[in-house]
Amino acid sequence: MATFTNGIPEKTIERLSEYRRSLVHCHRRGITHIYSHVLAGMHGITAVQVRRDLMLIGFTSDTKKGYDVEVLIAYISKILDSDTPMNIAVLGMGHLGQAITKYFNGKGLKLKITAAFDIDPAKVGQQIDGVPCYHMDSFEELASELDISLVVVSSPTKVAANFTLPIINAGIKGVLNFTSAPLSFPQGIVVENYDITTLLEKVAYFVKEGDN
Amino acid sequence: MATFTNGIPEKTIERLSEYRRSLVHCHRRGITHIYSHVLAGMHGITAVQVRRDLMLIGFTSDTKKGYDVEVLIAYISKILDSDTPMNIAVLGMGHLGQAITKYFNGKGLKLKITAAFDIDPAKVGQQIDGVPCYHMDSFEELASELDISLVVVSSPTKVAANFTLPIINAGIKGVLNFTSAPLSFPQGIVVENYDITTLLEKVAYFVKEGDN
Repeated sequence: MATFTNGIPEKTIERLSEYRRSLVHCHRRGITHIYSHVLAGMHGITAVQVRRDLMLIGFTSDTKKGYDVEVLIAYISKILDSDTPMNIAVLGMGHLGQAITKYFNGKGLKLKITAAFDIDPAKVGQQIDGVPCYHMDSFEELASELDISLVVVSSPTKVAANFTLPIINAGIKGVLNFTSAPLSFPQGIVVENYDITTLLEKVAYFVKEGDN
Repeated sequence: MATFTNGIPEKTIERLSEYRRSLVHCHRRGITHIYSHVLAGMHGITAVQVRRDLMLIGFTSDTKKGYDVEVLIAYISKILDSDTPMNIAVLGMGHLGQAITKYFNGKGLKLKITAAFDIDPAKVGQQIDGVPCYHMDSFEELASELDISLVVVSSPTKVAANFTLPIINAGIKGVLNFTSAPLSFPQGIVVENYDITTLLEKVAYFVKEGDN
């Protein structure tokens, strides 16, 4: 994945997504303005970092009361969101797939998990957490019919590689892969490989180094 | 989290964890040597990146057959692993907690999920995927008894903040938080907040930018 797009670093994109979630939370609680150091505190980072991120997207606050929460939400949304909603399919509807679906939908996001694929006869043909589950064999055909742009790979690791070709053939644009098998795609398909083992090993490493 | 520790960037630590997993996979299949470009290809990155990462940890290959797989696994393990195994507790044994436990254990890693905590009476007192599940109320007391150093927070987002104090009091050293509530801890406790929404929004953003 490119580290910079239009000059916005990947890490800033991550934080913008996080800021927005906190801001929406504040907005629901009736908070209209927020200082950069308060927003920073919610994320365990410095106010300088928050201001730098918002400067990067051209947002400046001219009020002494801090940032206008509603305006900032709209501003970040214009950066992050696509004009049209994007549909997501989950490949592998085991514990992880179900956790992601449950967690992600009903959040009122522009992104929505609208289909699941599995090979388990007990799941195929069912609605799981409000999402229809289809057989993996029909993925290529259904993906375009259902206008799927992104997929989450939450299958067992050993079958993940089998999805590469169907994903390419179906014209999928972005892949979020949670298995231990890193997937590679031709240019034009965005892929993020997020192996949970890596995340835990990283935390363990920094704990160990802190001990020294 | 610090970006550099002993001069090794965070991203390099992530990749070392990933290289090791691929190398162990190769080793099991009887592969004794591997070229940097082959290892790079498995991870969708350049050979230069692989060589730079390994140079950073002081590993150099002097064979024309590429890196010695077994030697490189041992070398990376010396960097990543603690001398003593670290025990992990999962806080929240819903779909996500169970997915992580099933996925993580039985991999023969130095890190091991040895306890789970929940408040669901149907789960407390049971073994789930081979891991005993205790009541969340007993976490502070049991964590030191069971020698837990790391926790994975996979509870519903709205209760995650309640864990901050028990985690501090129990002397936990590292936290991997998958909820939407970013958690902050005093210095000395390593925390990684990995909200799945952020990961998906990031992929969607780069897809959108690629479209332009």
